[in-house]
Amino acid sequence: MIRMASGWFYLSCLLLGSLGSMCILFTIYWMQYWRGGFAWNGSIYMFNWHPVLMVAGMVVFYGGASLVYRLPQSWVGPKLPWKLLHAALHLMAFILTVVGLVAVFTFHNHGKIANLYSLHSWLGITAVFLFACQWCLGFAVFLLPWASMWLRSLLKPIHVFFGAAILSLSIASVISGINEKLFFSLKNTTRPYNSLPSEAVFANSTGMLVVAFGLLVLYILLASSWKRPEPGILTDKQPLLHDGE
Amino acid sequence: MIRMASGWFYLSCLLLGSLGSMCILFTIYWMQYWRGGFAWNGSIYMFNWHPVLMVAGMVVFYGGASLVYRLPQSWVGPKLPWKLLHAALHLMAFILTVVGLVAVFTFHNHGKIANLYSLHSWLGITAVFLFACQWCLGFAVFLLPWASMWLRSLLKPIHVFFGAAILSLSIASVISGINEKLFFSLKNTTRPYNSLPSEAVFANSTGMLVVAFGLLVLYILLASSWKRPEPGILTDKQPLLHDGE
Repeated sequence: MIRMASGWFYLSCLLLGSLGSMCILFTIYWMQYWRGGFAWNGSIYMFNWHPVLMVAGMVVFYGGASLVYRLPQSWVGPKLPWKLLHAALHLMAFILTVVGLVAVFTFHNHGKIANLYSLHSWLGITAVFLFACQWCLGFAVFLLPWASMWLRSLLKPIHVFFGAAILSLSIASVISGINEKLFFSLKNTTRPYNSLPSEAVFANSTGMLVVAFGLLVLYILLASSWKRPEPGILTDKQPLLHDGE
Repeated sequence: MIRMASGWFYLSCLLLGSLGSMCILFTIYWMQYWRGGFAWNGSIYMFNWHPVLMVAGMVVFYGGASLVYRLPQSWVGPKLPWKLLHAALHLMAFILTVVGLVAVFTFHNHGKIANLYSLHSWLGITAVFLFACQWCLGFAVFLLPWASMWLRSLLKPIHVFFGAAILSLSIASVISGINEKLFFSLKNTTRPYNSLPSEAVFANSTGMLVVAFGLLVLYILLASSWKRPEPGILTDKQPLLHDGE
């Protein structure tokens, strides 16, 4: 049974890895080829780090880090190493996110552009704030040794739900961010956004890839049965798709 | 146990009803007070139906319709009336959605504006298309009498997952739509979007309300234990929060 689940799991991992890499590479290519590339000097080229790092941090690394306990290897043996891996990967995702925020705030401050006025920014900063709270609470309750099993099992479904909710907010932020960036970049050009120049098709497709990646992560996280069995219920009878109850 | 679950459930219903009403009323107020109100004549006032009907159809009615099986009354007795209610409410949500699409397409065609170029529109039309597929497949498998129990129990978790996924896509579409509308409406004004005039604060807040409503629906749908028990497991031991496994 574990072997069968593993086969499908690794196929999904392959798809997940391909989609995740494409999300990051497509964002880099968009910024490099159409938006002039990268710099770290307060210019618009510094802004270009923002989409790349947010997609990498809040979506791809975050999504990958969320799925650590879905690896069949994590289902047996001590749980602590997997908890440490889960926390460490999410910390990496958070660091990429913070650097991505530094990029946009520095660009705004250099260019005397207002910060945090658009709905994209309100939602994005909410997602990052919830991510920070989620990481700290998770560290305090699931990694530090003081919390009782009762508290941990009470918080676990809430932790899983907020993990998925933060990813959904991140995706909504990324979509509104790509949309807004295209309206900014493609106005006053010979081929504006509404004439769908190649940049628009490419960046729209990148957005749709981010959505596909996010949905695949949420499916594996919430709807698949690739989960560490509770102590004592690792049997051949565990269904591949649980029944939604 | 059911009585205890019911107490919390009705409190959540109250919160859900308030949030949902506020989402619709705030969108109407935004369009009425700042954008000149409503008409059905191909003008920008016809466009104003679009945000209202999409928030009402794809988010509020859709969200409410999704939660029919979470009503404790639906847990006992025949399931068919609840299935009919679930399908009927979703059909109403879908009709509102289609009228909302007619509003924006008619406005675009009258004003010679391109259709379906922005990422907002790509994602939105994907969500509506998936909604149509989900409704038809649900009708064919869960309402028509031909499908076997085996097929139904195979499709049920997929139906639940896609139901939640479509709501997430709708929220991302609404957020990018509000964001884009504010950039359109508040350019070339004395108080542009980046100076956060009262309209921007109000519409951003409406977007955040839509997110809060969506997350509450997803929480009740996926993470709460307010679910119809499988045949034979309606006992006092059903936990209020299941353990995420």
